[in-house]
Amino acid sequence: MTSSVSVDEHAARIGRMLAPLLMARASEVVPLTDALGRTTADDVRSAVDLPLFRNSQMDGYAVRASDIETVPIALEVSGDVPAGHTVPVVLTPGTAIRIMTGAPVPAGADAIVPVEDAELVLGRDDDLAGSIVEVRRSRRAGEYVRERGSDLHRGDVIVPLGTRLAPRHLAALAAAGVGEVRVLAPLRVGIITTGSELVRGDRPAQFGQVFDANGIALAALSEDAGAVVGYRGTSDDDPASFEGVLADAIAASDLILTSGGISKGAFEVVREVLEPRGAEVCTVAMQPGGPQATAIVDGVPIICFPGNPVSTQVSFTVFLRGILRRAAALPDIPVRQVPLADALTSVAGKRQFLRGRQLPDGRVEQASGPSSHLVAGMARSDVLIDLPADAEQVAAGADVTVWTL
Amino acid sequence: MTSSVSVDEHAARIGRMLAPLLMARASEVVPLTDALGRTTADDVRSAVDLPLFRNSQMDGYAVRASDIETVPIALEVSGDVPAGHTVPVVLTPGTAIRIMTGAPVPAGADAIVPVEDAELVLGRDDDLAGSIVEVRRSRRAGEYVRERGSDLHRGDVIVPLGTRLAPRHLAALAAAGVGEVRVLAPLRVGIITTGSELVRGDRPAQFGQVFDANGIALAALSEDAGAVVGYRGTSDDDPASFEGVLADAIAASDLILTSGGISKGAFEVVREVLEPRGAEVCTVAMQPGGPQATAIVDGVPIICFPGNPVSTQVSFTVFLRGILRRAAALPDIPVRQVPLADALTSVAGKRQFLRGRQLPDGRVEQASGPSSHLVAGMARSDVLIDLPADAEQVAAGADVTVWTL
Repeated sequence: MTSSVSVDEHAARIGRMLAPLLMARASEVVPLTDALGRTTADDVRSAVDLPLFRNSQMDGYAVRASDIETVPIALEVSGDVPAGHTVPVVLTPGTAIRIMTGAPVPAGADAIVPVEDAELVLGRDDDLAGSIVEVRRSRRAGEYVRERGSDLHRGDVIVPLGTRLAPRHLAALAAAGVGEVRVLAPLRVGIITTGSELVRGDRPAQFGQVFDANGIALAALSEDAGAVVGYRGTSDDDPASFEGVLADAIAASDLILTSGGISKGAFEVVREVLEPRGAEVCTVAMQPGGPQATAIVDGVPIICFPGNPVSTQVSFTVFLRGILRRAAALPDIPVRQVPLADALTSVAGKRQFLRGRQLPDGRVEQASGPSSHLVAGMARSDVLIDLPADAEQVAAGADVTVWTL
Repeated sequence: MTSSVSVDEHAARIGRMLAPLLMARASEVVPLTDALGRTTADDVRSAVDLPLFRNSQMDGYAVRASDIETVPIALEVSGDVPAGHTVPVVLTPGTAIRIMTGAPVPAGADAIVPVEDAELVLGRDDDLAGSIVEVRRSRRAGEYVRERGSDLHRGDVIVPLGTRLAPRHLAALAAAGVGEVRVLAPLRVGIITTGSELVRGDRPAQFGQVFDANGIALAALSEDAGAVVGYRGTSDDDPASFEGVLADAIAASDLILTSGGISKGAFEVVREVLEPRGAEVCTVAMQPGGPQATAIVDGVPIICFPGNPVSTQVSFTVFLRGILRRAAALPDIPVRQVPLADALTSVAGKRQFLRGRQLPDGRVEQASGPSSHLVAGMARSDVLIDLPADAEQVAAGADVTVWTL
């Protein structure tokens, strides 16, 4: 006898079952070049000040502000500091030193005169010996000088724990000389599709056989949600076959997903094997996706979805996508309220997840029939229209809840 | 003399320059297992009907609807069709054949009685020989029968040209037995960072040197926008060094990005090399990011960004992100209007792209100073606040345009 539960009750059960998995996470150290999209497992602190040294914000001339209080004024150009100049330079008071953006400000200088406010009146750009520069605008002490540590101090957190690393984070880490970073290991999802009707390997389908759509769907959905596929296999409807595949999946996965084999038929292999091991098999009051189950075998949580390809994909989206995305620090994909283009009828007593399509005007329309075998219809849709269990008629123009696929 | 242009004018120039690149795209064939997130280069048509054969929507009994018009009625169970049964079965009129979900409907049967509406009154589930089933509810012809081709006909388009392949598309392709798919080759971006001050290789920074933040930033930004990095190199401020790196980049890239070396200083290597080859160097009325250039060398478009790390990232976001995302069929990231938490002052005459942070209440605040060297400040931000060139004071609560990072 299976219990009948609501979508919310089943979602809560799965949430409770997976909570320990999300709390104790393995981590690994990766080079920065492999870290895009990974999630930091620690606060990453800087070993240096940023900027590393006091440097110029402009191409121009380093001076003492007190020497250019009256302008215009002609100053001897006593030196040159191109970017990348690694020898500290000292400014002779009453002179100017040509400087490039990012180059170290000479000791004794406290302001930069941008090149736009200065003109070489004697000498040449490519030979500064004996040059004279005329400064045409005064600058206060500190102007166009970037102080050491003005962006970040040594010991400061560059990127906090739990950050999904975007390009701007990698740039800041690289700027601080960080070459590698400790990130969360992604959750390893094991995927088992079941059914003696599934074509095995790269063969044509015989009469009565179908190609497996659920294996690649669950793998792609898991990867899209930030997990990695630790194992992927297929079992026929023989319990010994499923037992073998399950053992391999358990060895390679933090979490296992199965499709098929849990309804009321005569050859329900997932149910046959897992129910004696304590699986909770239930009927969720939803369409598609009624038969569902959960189990924990050898400490590994197993989420069992029904086998119709639309049911499998809808079940993943409703019950697992949010949890996996949170585990990977991916942003939630919130449900939205959107007006319905055309009236819909629904089946009372079961929450409906109809395949829908967003129209350019922002409304949503049904994109495919409700039957759970319409896998091509699912491909033509881009949202699920979520109708409550008590809905029977929904009028055109009424707001409905949609899940973005 | 460099021309001064608006952000929109420079964006339009880059758009025109890259348009040919987006129209003539190379494609490649990849197995379905490598196709997640790739973009179809052709309409993908089905070689089969889906479903492949007429099959049962339920676990139950296949019957002639005309035999169960009066219920309850007892029928002999004359056979059994589990899923994966590859031998065609024929229904003897006046009898029932047990059938599993997805199994082929026997010839002569036109309806399925779900197991919930039937009971074996003689015989056992595991030995149907001589069994009798009592059917308790009538069904019309066609009920719970999935007709061959009811999802998709042979020759129909499963996934149209230009579709970024999501899990649901892969599921439909797999269901139709499609094992590989022709997808657009991603754009190969070559990245050249310039500056004699950049630390080369995995060394500590000497006084006056800085770690290269732009190489990894441009690589990660390009990958995030759906491109691949075809080449990544660094040049010092010697024209011969840049020439060498540029030749390598041209050989490996559809499009090249450079950082640094295009402003008014004395050692502007990108400008020195590219201006004689027809580069358009300009000052864009924006902060950060004023000095910009474009060129085409040996047929390869080159987009030159300024070298300050914040300027580089802002320039990519404003001028290139949208184009690369469209090339990869990634959804646009639209700018939004968001209320400002605190008043801001801006520099009249230049469009400002301030680093901002979204607050939980939906408002946005400045997250870092305006200076273009604040790379750690950029890492703490999640939006760019885009203030028009004529803004000088923006009041708290006013709506501002934000770009999501």
